[in-house]
Order: sequence, then structure tokens, then C-alpha cells
Amino acid sequence: MRIAVFCSGSGTNLEAMVNAQKRGDIKAEIALVVSDVAGCFALKRAEKAGIKALVVERKKFSSGKEFESEILKSLQKEKVDLVVLAGYMRLLSADFIKEYRNKILNIHPALLPSFKGTHGIKDALEYGVKITGPTVHFVTEDMDAGPIILQSAVTVAEDDTEETLAESIHKEEHKIYPRAVQLFIEGRLKIEGSRVRIL
Amino acid sequence: MRIAVFCSGSGTNLEAMVNAQKRGDIKAEIALVVSDVAGCFALKRAEKAGIKALVVERKKFSSGKEFESEILKSLQKEKVDLVVLAGYMRLLSADFIKEYRNKILNIHPALLPSFKGTHGIKDALEYGVKITGPTVHFVTEDMDAGPIILQSAVTVAEDDTEETLAESIHKEEHKIYPRAVQLFIEGRLKIEGSRVRIL
Repeated sequence: MRIAVFCSGSGTNLEAMVNAQKRGDIKAEIALVVSDVAGCFALKRAEKAGIKALVVERKKFSSGKEFESEILKSLQKEKVDLVVLAGYMRLLSADFIKEYRNKILNIHPALLPSFKGTHGIKDALEYGVKITGPTVHFVTEDMDAGPIILQSAVTVAEDDTEETLAESIHKEEHKIYPRAVQLFIEGRLKIEGSRVRIL
Repeated sequence: MRIAVFCSGSGTNLEAMVNAQKRGDIKAEIALVVSDVAGCFALKRAEKAGIKALVVERKKFSSGKEFESEILKSLQKEKVDLVVLAGYMRLLSADFIKEYRNKILNIHPALLPSFKGTHGIKDALEYGVKITGPTVHFVTEDMDAGPIILQSAVTVAEDDTEETLAESIHKEEHKIYPRAVQLFIEGRLKIEGSRVRIL
């Protein structure tokens, strides 16, 4: 099985995947890193790990469709079976999702369905929840609403800032995201309606 | 400090309060049990624990206002400082809440702000979350939206039914609800906007 990891930033979840693969906790090839941001740190991590990396910048294409079709072409060329979004800051179109139906995973830094959107950590902290944590889910057309694969609970400490809370959540992300990927690889994720049964 | 516990059903959280008080984990008097349902099991628990119980049935009053005013009269007579909702299935009016501003606690069987409303356990299970759990919060005019005091994480097991999940959640409720009450009694809950700081 061949995996593509999509990144836009520092790529700490990519790093977690690479490490899990080295340890043998992910039994598949990370065949490709795709980034929409030239020069982002995730690309350096890919280079260091010897993973083929592809930069596809939206501004180089006249439409979102052409932009995505360039990415899809590369995925097909690399025979990618699973797309792992790891801090990829761009929404995928319905057409793209259709091409990889139930084969795209994402991680969100809050316990979905709470605190959807791009500020899951800040929003949870400001709301005042005492428990939060990351969610790995299948990507569907509705943002942050796809079937949930794994979640992990993180206790909000009294003196947590957005930074310290983010650190605690990311630590859990780096545990559950590789685990979810390996469950996918083993064919143990069965989607039943909005629920995921782990076989 | 004197507490009133409001119930409509079996009163397991009332029982948890009574036990916590016996153990010395709640250092206050449970002065009154109020129920809107004649003959509910919570009333039997109150009787067994030797707590004064009051049945106030809505149908005996021509308006919600008169119904609540009967309850408020009893709370004032008993010099109640804190109202603890424990499976009380009736919404309190804004007027009632104003009388006991920041002195009414409720417990909800889901990790708020997820799964508000009367089917928090079923809704979470059907959504397919992997982590849920109870929330103790201050009661405000907006249902299930008051400042959060304590939450506890419960892992949803693969084979959980609504019944088994409810059992796991109630077990956590019986731990965190008495703890939240004692924090209130000790004056350690400081509301700051929508957040509760525990001093």
C-alpha cells in the first residue's frame, strides 16, 4: 500500500508518520509528500527522509480544478492508495474527494463534532472545556464532519495557554494518527453510516 | 451551606451526593429534595436518607410562573444556597435562574458543547464519537451552554450499546458531580466570561 501525505506547514504529523514507519508501526510506503506551500518545513522533512516531494502551488493554476487535477495526476502516477492530510490548509473539492472516496484521512485538533474549523484549539480553550483532544476522521464533502476513526482525550490544565494546550494535543495526534493509518492499511476500518467500526 | 437537589427520576446523582456527604467529601447540608414527579424513586432515596422532600407538580398550577414561585418559596424558607439539578427534566425559567444566578449546577451526559439536549448519550453513540463523557456546568438561560466546571472522558467501546455507554457515563457522573459541588461549597469556582477557573 502506498501513502501520500499532504502538508502546508511544519509537517510534525508527517514526521510522526515517518517515525512510525521506521519503527514498523506503519506497514506501507510513504510514496509522496504533496505541499501547496513552496519552502515549507514539511518539504525539508520529506527530503531528509528521502521521500519524493511535490510542490503544487495554487497560484500557478488558473482554476482550482486544474490545480487539483495536477495533484491527482501525480497520485495516480505514484499509485497512491491513501491520502493523509497533515496540516494541509486547503479544502479538497467534492470531485477530488470522489476520486479517493473513503481513502482520505484528516486530523483535527478538537473532539469533533465540537470546535470545527481552523481554530479548534483556541476555540476550545476560549469556550472553557475541561476535556479536548484530537480526532482522526475520514474526509467527506462536509468539513470536519466525516466518520470518526480515533479520538484521544486531553485534559485542559488550569494554566494552559493556547501554546501549551497545542503541545499536549499534538503529542496525542502523533500517537493516534499513525495508529489510524495502520488500521486503514490493515483493512480494519469499516464505515457504517456515520460510524466507523474497528474490526 | 445548604443544598437543594432537584430530581424527576431515579435520583442516582442524588444518591451520589448523599454518599459523598456521608463520606465527608461534601461538607454541606442537603437540606431539600425537590421533585416535579410524585412517586419517583428519587423521593424514596430522599426519605431513606432522612432528607426533607417536596413534590411540586406542574399540573397543580395554572402557570409555570406560579409553579416555580412555589418552589422558590420553599428554597427561601429552607435558606438554600445552591441548587443541584440531578435528572430534573424541566427547564428553569429565566426568572428562576436570575434568583439563583451562578448558584445552579447541572450535569449533562455528553462532553458539551457536543450533543446538547435530552439525548446526549444516544446522539453521541449514533454520531460515532470515540470519546464522550459527562459535563458539570453552571445553569444559564441557554440550555446546556453555561460555564463548564468539570468534565470527564469516557471511551466508547466498540460493542457499547446505549445502555452500557450510559452505565460508564453515569459512573463518571457520580465522581465528578459531588466534586464540583464541593468546589462550589469551598468557593473555588471563579466564573470568568464563559470559563470557570478552579482556584
